[in-house]
Amino acid sequence: MVGVRKFKIAAIQVGPIARAAKREEVVERLRGLLEEAAEKNATLAVFPELTLTTFFPKWLIDTQEEVDSYFEKGDITKGPCKPLFDLAKHRGIGFYLGYAELTEDGHHFNTSILVDNRGEVVHKYRKVHLPGFVEPIADVPFQQLEKRYFEYGDLGFEAVRTNPEWIDATVGMLICNDRRWPEAWRSYSLQGMDLMLIGYNSVANAVGLFGDKENKTLRQYHSDLSVQSNAYFNSCYAVSVGKCGNEEGQNLLAGSLIVDPTGRTMVQSEIEDDDVMVREIDLDETIVGKQKMFDFARHRRPECYTRLTEQKGAVALPPYSEKK
Amino acid sequence: MVGVRKFKIAAIQVGPIARAAKREEVVERLRGLLEEAAEKNATLAVFPELTLTTFFPKWLIDTQEEVDSYFEKGDITKGPCKPLFDLAKHRGIGFYLGYAELTEDGHHFNTSILVDNRGEVVHKYRKVHLPGFVEPIADVPFQQLEKRYFEYGDLGFEAVRTNPEWIDATVGMLICNDRRWPEAWRSYSLQGMDLMLIGYNSVANAVGLFGDKENKTLRQYHSDLSVQSNAYFNSCYAVSVGKCGNEEGQNLLAGSLIVDPTGRTMVQSEIEDDDVMVREIDLDETIVGKQKMFDFARHRRPECYTRLTEQKGAVALPPYSEKK
Repeated sequence: MVGVRKFKIAAIQVGPIARAAKREEVVERLRGLLEEAAEKNATLAVFPELTLTTFFPKWLIDTQEEVDSYFEKGDITKGPCKPLFDLAKHRGIGFYLGYAELTEDGHHFNTSILVDNRGEVVHKYRKVHLPGFVEPIADVPFQQLEKRYFEYGDLGFEAVRTNPEWIDATVGMLICNDRRWPEAWRSYSLQGMDLMLIGYNSVANAVGLFGDKENKTLRQYHSDLSVQSNAYFNSCYAVSVGKCGNEEGQNLLAGSLIVDPTGRTMVQSEIEDDDVMVREIDLDETIVGKQKMFDFARHRRPECYTRLTEQKGAVALPPYSEKK
Repeated sequence: MVGVRKFKIAAIQVGPIARAAKREEVVERLRGLLEEAAEKNATLAVFPELTLTTFFPKWLIDTQEEVDSYFEKGDITKGPCKPLFDLAKHRGIGFYLGYAELTEDGHHFNTSILVDNRGEVVHKYRKVHLPGFVEPIADVPFQQLEKRYFEYGDLGFEAVRTNPEWIDATVGMLICNDRRWPEAWRSYSLQGMDLMLIGYNSVANAVGLFGDKENKTLRQYHSDLSVQSNAYFNSCYAVSVGKCGNEEGQNLLAGSLIVDPTGRTMVQSEIEDDDVMVREIDLDETIVGKQKMFDFARHRRPECYTRLTEQKGAVALPPYSEKK
């Protein structure tokens, strides 16, 4: 059997979600967007990070009870998100969905799942590169407290092969800040990954937290650059999708995009609201890069990369001293 | 003593060098360009890869004697390149120079050196990521035989701290294809590298070798993207300089550039010939990225990156099988 290598993929950008929004309302909105993707003949759609709620790590939240209210408990296919899984099965459209996961045994993760065309969860990823802080920063309009509300993902970077009758892909999943870390991409492409799916909530004006010189234009550039370059370095398609717009006073980046294996943008959203963009991709287009410029077996030199795994932080060289 | 963190740096792009060009003529040309950089008050200048000769790996060369004629033997500071070292000392301008190195004991490397403002060699790098092939490919107008003529660099990625009275930098050096490998950049930035120097000879139309869809525009995009993205991911300045133009019938990329620690191009050559571009850089501008978004000690997760050093080539996942 020859698998499905050429198919249509949807980037589903989502506009702001209010703090008070009910989960059922959000899911109904997402269901409509997924329906639109299916109408456009997409067989896989990508939603953002933490798609079901407002981006709550911007606040220092008083009670664990309120924190937990932003999380999904139990079997996600059976709760308020059930309409998404039903539609996936009914229309034969799989999806990537980011959400806050509270496990049965009380662990909190920033998670994404891959759902196939039968509406079944076929893979899960938990965000490894949590940005931000554990403790709040004084005198900033918004916090970035992901390190407070989430635990580090415990599933590593495990790619997954999909049912070739649906799509014949080796899929990697990342979440938001992960996309800026080449180690994450490479960990997947060393498993033959040819399609990377990414959701994000990226602040457009990170006042006080990441340096005051970063305006929206620069942060969009960084978001695009991270995906374009790593798609090129790893010869894969990448779909990177944001929750965007003015969300409870905080501006989130839009600019969701689909990038080809040469690192070029195929399509990018030009609005700051819900947006369903569909493009046909052909995973065989990833092969030339994997066999030529980025044939890892011929060209990588892992014996020279030992610092990458033996060190975590940078270790400055000793000060200069005269050698001669 | 407070070191020199703010200074002027020169990207010295070099036009084609003929096969028949005498070494003394080339050096005299380079000396003039270095003089021009000094006139523009640069204290460090960057020359391309294999600056002293034509890019000979494009040919299958019959005899080892001819191959060796493209290499520098013995102490490079004393041979035909001596005028460059003399000028460095006289004008107080250091430089990065790429050349083919034949060691006393007969090893062949694609090498770059860092020379300080006293005209002394303070560091050496030997290219790790040799592209191309050992054996020639049939029916292509030009070969890429770096894997035939050079041995893999045996010095790893060792950054160097420079004399702070000249420039107070932690310098990394890469050569050409190395710039496309994030592992190389990260190996340096884990040592606190804040200034990356790169020389290249990159084919503008790699007919038959790297896929026929890669035209000059795309290859320039890849060259730029590699430097911009990795400068951003590692919060360093980067100077990437090519030997360019129509060299013995082969078109080499121009577009030499200086990139800031946010990944933005400060200046890029618009000609395909000798070009001396000077910009002031302030290494303190690298600090915010290293302390915020890319504070490795807080944000990297090396326990998840083990594939990067345990594996060389990609290992495809087993074919899909029904799990449920």
